[in-house]
Order: sequence, then structure tokens, then C-alpha cells
Amino acid sequence: MAVAEIIAIGSELLTPERTDTNSLWLTGQLNAIGIEVRMKTIVGDDGERLQEAVSDALRRSDVVITTGGLGPTADDITREFTAKAVGRELVYHTEIEEHLRERFRGWGRQMPEINKRQAYVIDGADVLPNPNGSAVGMLAAIEGKMLIVLPGPPRENQPMFAEHVLPRLKNIAGEFHVRRRVLRVIGGESAVDEIAAPIYTRYENVETSILFNKSEVEIHVAAKAGSETEAQATADKLSDELTSALGDNVFSTNGETMEEVVGELLKQRNETLAIAESCTGGLIGSRITNVAGSSDYFLEGCVTYSNEAKIHTLNVAREIIDEHGAVSAECAEAMATGMRERVGSTHALSVTGIAGPGGGSDEKPVGTVFIGYAGPAGVRSTRINLPGDRYLIRWRASQAALDLLRRQLRRDTHQSR
Amino acid sequence: MAVAEIIAIGSELLTPERTDTNSLWLTGQLNAIGIEVRMKTIVGDDGERLQEAVSDALRRSDVVITTGGLGPTADDITREFTAKAVGRELVYHTEIEEHLRERFRGWGRQMPEINKRQAYVIDGADVLPNPNGSAVGMLAAIEGKMLIVLPGPPRENQPMFAEHVLPRLKNIAGEFHVRRRVLRVIGGESAVDEIAAPIYTRYENVETSILFNKSEVEIHVAAKAGSETEAQATADKLSDELTSALGDNVFSTNGETMEEVVGELLKQRNETLAIAESCTGGLIGSRITNVAGSSDYFLEGCVTYSNEAKIHTLNVAREIIDEHGAVSAECAEAMATGMRERVGSTHALSVTGIAGPGGGSDEKPVGTVFIGYAGPAGVRSTRINLPGDRYLIRWRASQAALDLLRRQLRRDTHQSR
Repeated sequence: MAVAEIIAIGSELLTPERTDTNSLWLTGQLNAIGIEVRMKTIVGDDGERLQEAVSDALRRSDVVITTGGLGPTADDITREFTAKAVGRELVYHTEIEEHLRERFRGWGRQMPEINKRQAYVIDGADVLPNPNGSAVGMLAAIEGKMLIVLPGPPRENQPMFAEHVLPRLKNIAGEFHVRRRVLRVIGGESAVDEIAAPIYTRYENVETSILFNKSEVEIHVAAKAGSETEAQATADKLSDELTSALGDNVFSTNGETMEEVVGELLKQRNETLAIAESCTGGLIGSRITNVAGSSDYFLEGCVTYSNEAKIHTLNVAREIIDEHGAVSAECAEAMATGMRERVGSTHALSVTGIAGPGGGSDEKPVGTVFIGYAGPAGVRSTRINLPGDRYLIRWRASQAALDLLRRQLRRDTHQSR
Repeated sequence: MAVAEIIAIGSELLTPERTDTNSLWLTGQLNAIGIEVRMKTIVGDDGERLQEAVSDALRRSDVVITTGGLGPTADDITREFTAKAVGRELVYHTEIEEHLRERFRGWGRQMPEINKRQAYVIDGADVLPNPNGSAVGMLAAIEGKMLIVLPGPPRENQPMFAEHVLPRLKNIAGEFHVRRRVLRVIGGESAVDEIAAPIYTRYENVETSILFNKSEVEIHVAAKAGSETEAQATADKLSDELTSALGDNVFSTNGETMEEVVGELLKQRNETLAIAESCTGGLIGSRITNVAGSSDYFLEGCVTYSNEAKIHTLNVAREIIDEHGAVSAECAEAMATGMRERVGSTHALSVTGIAGPGGGSDEKPVGTVFIGYAGPAGVRSTRINLPGDRYLIRWRASQAALDLLRRQLRRDTHQSR
């Protein structure tokens, strides 16, 4: 399989505000024809480092693509230092200068002299025309490798890549195709991997990576094969194997979010939901309603942050709060029950807990969260202890609540079958 | 001036979907103490390339920071290959293992055996504790250079960097000091820049950048000078000049979020807030309660998504919905009034609108949002038309509602003086 590297050039990409996003589109294009991106580098307007980056990349990889640094000003150093990296001269192309003068005339302006810089091309490289800007691109074969030099703006480099580079890469890319699946799983990274690794390591032409993302594990599967059909079949087969091994902890096999999965289950069953939130402060409602069409199943939410709100709005008995505290199984169950009765929904969820940083005790430290559920199968609650800061505890509590509902809905479905 | 490189590790950063954003925050932190970031590299779970990247970076730069690849699974290769890059062994730290076992016990779980991998540390490196995750960081002095190995999740690497790395980097940082201010402004990017540019371009030793972020413009000011005091004074002076030119549209001059600003105003005035949300679905409540201590002023929220919920919970007259629709000024005002009466809060906000993609009409297209307010100064509402997709419309509606409250609170303050 052919291997590529991408080098993004420009000091603005080394500030706290901006990162290289050009490479995303290029990676998609390369992956689609079976070329893998193995490394990305970002250099500023720094000739020495650029030269080193290009020559290192050409030593390691079959295809090296640079983006940016082809403008007309002094800090546009890509032409000079890519040429140095491959030990070639820059050659002046009068036809490029002519063409640039023409363009400027077309806009009723005279070409500034500094634009002449843009007529220099690496000796022996093919010129890639740029209908959307003044910087031409270059493509040079260097000892069996391919160096491709593109301008920075996406509106310039994307059409240039699609029209002039892609057809030539297809020849070297060979016969590989890549198809991906994303599984989302409840659980810890290591616990999931202990189950998943013995399965995915058996697949030779699949790259699998395991990521932990706030409150869930993502398993990314990328299958390579000689045909699209074969790659898809392999990705699907591994996805199925992983799903049966990980069981009910897998909540999505095509990258859907938890709120999409729960919404879909409610929709299928034509049932409704209401939510009473304390420490999550509206986050669960916000996630649920971020799905278009959620008004089909989501009736109402209450953010009962204060004790008074729990008592008056959710009809939680004052004695429950006095005896057990607002953060308790009893209160969570009363909140869910009160919410369900108040709205008449099929299901109601509740969350009450200590998101921190203050408010914790020995008995109920920061991160203690109770999730309540009320529905046709009855009322129940669960206590969890969540690690993390305020943001993470809230997020994880919202995820745990939605997951509890998901499991309940799946259980209901199995029982009714 | 000291020079740094950042190496982000993880195959997911080489897919078409994700790019390295960790480096942005780190760059800001490094710049603030006068360390320049000269190069960034992104490598996958590829030991050979990682090893080369680390040793190249240590040859070129004073400080090398890696992020990611410290998880417990086999594809987490950072420990092994950073050690190889610096020619040192990995040493097993039983106290790290003990600490991990302790953590898992705290969550009522047993530590999976593979987490033992996370107890290996480069020989001679200092261990950087991680209160938010299982991967410790490392800091090693390598022939006068500094290698810093951090976990990938921002919630883990940012506190670790701030607490354990920054103090030690300050010693090696050079004679330049950089001080930053971040202004947050309501308005469009070009409109803000038209007012701001004539001011900030007069400052020679200040780098100013204007960013548009979902619903607000951020003005980042970075002043450089020979002393901290001088840099701070310049940053403050420019920040003040910009604030008086942009007036009340500037809602924060030290990077505070809108919800922090509103919370602070409520706290100062010892007043309370209740929120009735329709299309934002709990997002405003979630934002407000993401601020620690918000229980001091936030009483209760209702997510009245359905018409029935608006009628029964907020006491909106059915005739209002029948005559004007749920998305109307009348309904927004009735929601705010009903919410305020229900809870007895000083202020109440309401939002009702069409977040899309469905539900729009000629008269009220997708993006039509009404914001209602009820408080001591009376009841009012405003209609806005928001561009963007469902996610952005909801976010912008939440921002507009909070901004309306902010302006009301400031007006109240001025009037009472």
C-alpha cells in the first residue's frame, strides 16, 4: 500500500488560533484511492525546517504533498526550499509570467513585480495550473517518489488536486480500497480493548484504533482490500464480531450518537420521554433535542436545581429530601416518578448528583450521581461515581442516564417479542 | 528566544475526520512565556516514525512536547518509542500501579491487567500526576533539552501542563514576555474588525487576531515586551481602547464566557433567574449551570418542548398558541411571565423558535427565534433570524437570550446608580 505524508506550510498554522485543516480533505481523497497518510507536519515560514521536513518525508514515503507558502511575498518560501530539498534548481517559466500578466489585465490591473516569483518552478516538475489563484502547483517525480506542491487556499488546492493530481496518483495507488466503520461502546478503554483486541488483531488488512472520548469508547475500523465490496465486507464482518463480543455495551455501529440511538428507539416504539435534571442542568434535554425530529418523542424537561423546585415542580416529598438529601436514590426515584406523572410520558429519566467542585462529603463525594427511571416496567435508580471535573461529571452523568434508558428500551423490546 | 515543537500522536489524527487541536492551547501557553512553537508533527500509532520525529525534534528545538498515545492498549506506543528516541529504558513504577489500583477501587472496579502498561516511565524522567485520568505524564531533561510527554485528552493534559510543566518552563524561557487579553464581542467578524482594525494596527508590538466562534467575535491580543509589566500594560491599554470603541457589544475582556458574565452580574445583585426553553431544549440551563456556584442564582428551568407543556407548565393561554403560534412574540412573553410567576425568580428568560431542518414557513423560516424576558422592569420580547444549521441556530439562540439578559442587568445597574 502506498504511503503519503502531508506538509502544511505557514506561520499562521503555528499560532494558538489556527490548525491545518487542508490535510483532512486531502486525506479523504488519498484514502479513497487506497493511499494511507502516515504523517503530517506543520512548519512555519522557516526554510531550514521546511527543507528538512520535505527531504525526510521523501525518504520515508511514496507521496509527499505540501500545501501553502506559494504566494508572491518574501515569507512565501515553499518554492525555494522544496527545490533545495530535492537538490534541483528553480527554473523561470516565461509562459507562467505571461499568463499571470494576462490574469491581472483581465481584472483591469497591472501585475505587481513581486508576482514574478510565482513563475519559478522546480526543474523538471510539471506545472499544475490554478484557475482560482495566482500560484501554480508543481508535481515532480523524485527517485521513484512523488512530490506534489499545492497552494494553501482550499478553493485553489482542491480543484487542482482533483483535476491534475488524482488521476496520476491512481496509477501508483494500485488496487487498494479502504472502508470504515465506527463502533461506540460504553465502558473503559482497557476493559473494552481486553475483549476487542483478540478479535481485531486476527484481521490482517484492517487497522483498528481504540479511542476514549469523554464517556465512551470509539472503535475505528478501517478495512483495506482490492475492491470496495471486499473492503466493506471485511469492515462489516469485524464490526459484527466486535458487536457480538461486546454485547449490549455497543450502542452504535455506524457512529451514531447516544441521543440519536435513544431517539430512534423511542420513535420505533412510538413512545415518549420526559426528563427531570438537577446537576446536569438541562444538558440531557439539550442533547436529546439536538436531534432533528425529537419533538416526536420528547415532551418536556425540568431543570429542578433547587430543593424547592424539586418539591413544587416534581412533587418530591419534603421528607425525602430532609431524610435522604436531594442527592439520593429516593430523591432520584421521586423525581422520575413526579416527572412522569406530571407530563404523562411513557418514560421519565432523572438525574441528581454532585458535579463539584464544591458540595461533596465523605459519604457522597464529588462525582456521586443518582439516576432515576420511571416507566411501564416500574421505578428504579442507580448510583454511580464519576471521575473528572465539573464538565466531565455532568457529561458522563448525561451519558449514563441516556444509556440507562437505552438498555431499558432494549429490554422492553426483547420482553415484548 | 526558546523554541518548542509539538508532536501529536494517534492514528485517528491522520483520518479525514480529525485534526490535532491540542497544540492550540499548548501554543498559547508557550507563547505567553515567550517560547515560540516552530513546528508541529502528527504521527499515527507508528513506532518508527514517532521515534524519528522525537529525536529530530530534540535535535532542532529546546522543548519537545508530545500529546497522546499513553493509554493502556497495544496501540498506545508513546512510552516505548519516546524512550527509544532518547536511548533510555522504561522503568516500572510500582507506586503508579498502586495508585491506579486505588483509583479503580474507588470506582468499585478492579484494575484490568493491561493498565499496568501505564506504570512504565522513561528512566530518569519525572512523573507528572494525572488527577483526571489513568495516564501519568513525564518530563525528562535530555542533554540540555526538555522532553515533555503528556496524555491526549485536553482535560488531562491541560491541568497537568499548567501545574507541573509551566513552572519549570518559565526558567528556560527567554527575555521576551508575552501577555494576552481576550475580548469577546457580540457582532459580525467584519463589522467588528472595521471598528477594531484602525486601533490595533497602531500597536507595533502587539499581535491581534480576530476570530469568529459560533455566535461571537473573539479579539485575541498578544503584547510582547521586555518585561511582564510592560507587556501587560500594553495589552491592557489596547484592550481598553477596543472596549470603549466597541461599547456594550463587548461582553467580556478577560475571556470569560457569556454564562460566567451573566452569572457574575446576578451574583453581584443577589438576584435569581429561571428559564423556559423550547427550541434550545435545555441548552441555556446547561450553559448557566456549567458555572460552579450557579445554584446561588439559578432556581429552575423548564424545557417546554410541546404545546401542552407550554400550556400546563408555564400557564401559557391556549388562545395565544392558537392565534399566534408557539413561535411568536406573544408566546415568548407568556412563557417568560409564566416561568417567573411559577418560580418567583427576579428574572425569567424564554426562547421559542424554529431550529430546523423542518418546521419553517414563509412567514417564519428556519432560524426564526423569539426571546422573551420578564423581570422587575416589565415584560418584553425580541425576534431574531439566525443563520446556520440546527446546532448553530440553537447555540446562537442561547447566546442571544443570555445577551438580552446581560444587557437588561447592565441597564438595571445603570438606572439604579
